[in-house]
Amino acid sequence: MKLICDLDTGIDDALAIAYALGSPDAELIGVTGTYGNVTVEQGVANSRRLLGILGAPGIPVFPGIGHPWGKREFVRTDASRFIHGDNGVGGVDIGAAVPEEPADGEKAIAFIADQVRRCGQELTIVPTGALTTIAEAMKRHPQVARARIVLMGGALTVPGNVSAVAEANISQDPDAADYVFRHGENVTMVGLDVTLQTLLTGAQTRRWRDLGMVAAATYADMVDYYIGAYATTSPGLGGCGLHDPLAVAVALDPTLVTSLNTNLKVDLGGRTIGDEARLLDPVKNTHVAVSVDADRFVGELMARTLRLFGEK
Amino acid sequence: MKLICDLDTGIDDALAIAYALGSPDAELIGVTGTYGNVTVEQGVANSRRLLGILGAPGIPVFPGIGHPWGKREFVRTDASRFIHGDNGVGGVDIGAAVPEEPADGEKAIAFIADQVRRCGQELTIVPTGALTTIAEAMKRHPQVARARIVLMGGALTVPGNVSAVAEANISQDPDAADYVFRHGENVTMVGLDVTLQTLLTGAQTRRWRDLGMVAAATYADMVDYYIGAYATTSPGLGGCGLHDPLAVAVALDPTLVTSLNTNLKVDLGGRTIGDEARLLDPVKNTHVAVSVDADRFVGELMARTLRLFGEK
Repeated sequence: MKLICDLDTGIDDALAIAYALGSPDAELIGVTGTYGNVTVEQGVANSRRLLGILGAPGIPVFPGIGHPWGKREFVRTDASRFIHGDNGVGGVDIGAAVPEEPADGEKAIAFIADQVRRCGQELTIVPTGALTTIAEAMKRHPQVARARIVLMGGALTVPGNVSAVAEANISQDPDAADYVFRHGENVTMVGLDVTLQTLLTGAQTRRWRDLGMVAAATYADMVDYYIGAYATTSPGLGGCGLHDPLAVAVALDPTLVTSLNTNLKVDLGGRTIGDEARLLDPVKNTHVAVSVDADRFVGELMARTLRLFGEK
Repeated sequence: MKLICDLDTGIDDALAIAYALGSPDAELIGVTGTYGNVTVEQGVANSRRLLGILGAPGIPVFPGIGHPWGKREFVRTDASRFIHGDNGVGGVDIGAAVPEEPADGEKAIAFIADQVRRCGQELTIVPTGALTTIAEAMKRHPQVARARIVLMGGALTVPGNVSAVAEANISQDPDAADYVFRHGENVTMVGLDVTLQTLLTGAQTRRWRDLGMVAAATYADMVDYYIGAYATTSPGLGGCGLHDPLAVAVALDPTLVTSLNTNLKVDLGGRTIGDEARLLDPVKNTHVAVSVDADRFVGELMARTLRLFGEK
């Protein structure tokens, strides 16, 4: 399966990249950059450097749109800074960033539209941040609405994480998210319903560290930082949530989750909820993951990352 | 199966009574009265008169608690008055009410606790209004927490009906509802997720009317009023929602719905949502109906009501 990941890289985005590259059944054909955990510029720089560390410097990374629909800028929250660190990867040194052209999103949108046209149903798009670039691509290029999209974001059966009702990725650009849920023909939502059930702990990062390899140590450092942040923000959880890599995993193997088929809308500034106007519509375009085989997923994550890190 | 229905009767509560009495697989051993659509006093009077019309005047009806926990009174909303009519049954004349002792709920609580003790798992309690009486019974008599409860109320995957987040029955007494979801060991929630997918229309009430029987005509008059109210409040729906009878139907045949097993809490003044503190708890005490075989349910409703009305 061909994948395009739309990332705001971010520590769990870094794990999403590793999951994709460690999967023999996946071909990561490109990364587009969005905002949320970090700015587009920072996220793109992080994606490029991580792809380099993981031995895949040739995978193209295109900056997407850097701010929500109808706004002129994106301001990173203190919470994102705390959870992902100032540089987005927990303060870990992953090399110097190459200076960037300003992000206007044109190349990312063109890349997505072109690949959807070329690859059809062979391609899955995995967005893990604000949905602005995906929604804009869908608006300008209707074929993008027919692409399979497996996104990390939202919360249907559990509370949000930036408010009682809103999850962070959706709340960054509720209008764009609403557009994707209304127009996307095959959308899978991997939200807090399931991602907070999948945890990584220090026991797992030690297994990476024990490999004695640079990439493995880099990931262990990043994720240990992330686990530490979670110990402050979610003390009862006992680890860090594996949000973004679960979306990649579900893209590759939908049987990791059970889903509710429905039609969603976004209201209240970022709540994902069933659209009562389409409740009787026999066509359901969204598959919301509502339970997950967490043990099997964490096993797959460890097998794929250990293989990837051990080879580098 | 033995049933106790805890009703705020109400037109769809009237349908719940008819569904139970028309079911050869159900024995309605008693009705307790709660508030919401109407006051406890009005609801109890309506339940007694409807049981009489349906040929079951011997089924006992006990008034429950008449106001939410921590409050001294219940004030009926204009919306309830519009949807169910001034007298709760769409203005239809169902006979004169017998004067009532004031409602303090003691007899209802004693009846519920006693029947749970006697009948154990043979009994299912079906609450279709504010949960105050059930929660109080559970608090005073711990065995009530072990009873099977199939309640109409809440909205997990769709918006509420009294606000964007809250469904009417839950919002009447959010604390009592929260208590039931936290302490009840076997709770099925039949909420707006499914009840708004099950509609009755004038085509069905005409079939009752064509029987030429008093009970059938009374029900046709009540439900025609209700369908008219829905045409104003939910013009897109094309009928009236079958909230309360669906709860009775699911009590008797859980295969009418598919469910998500989870642990719920009530927040935001009446939202039913997964309790993130119990997300990793392997014990899930609530089964939330998230999809329904609407055609089969409406077929069962018509078969059972036609049998019941035709016999009287």
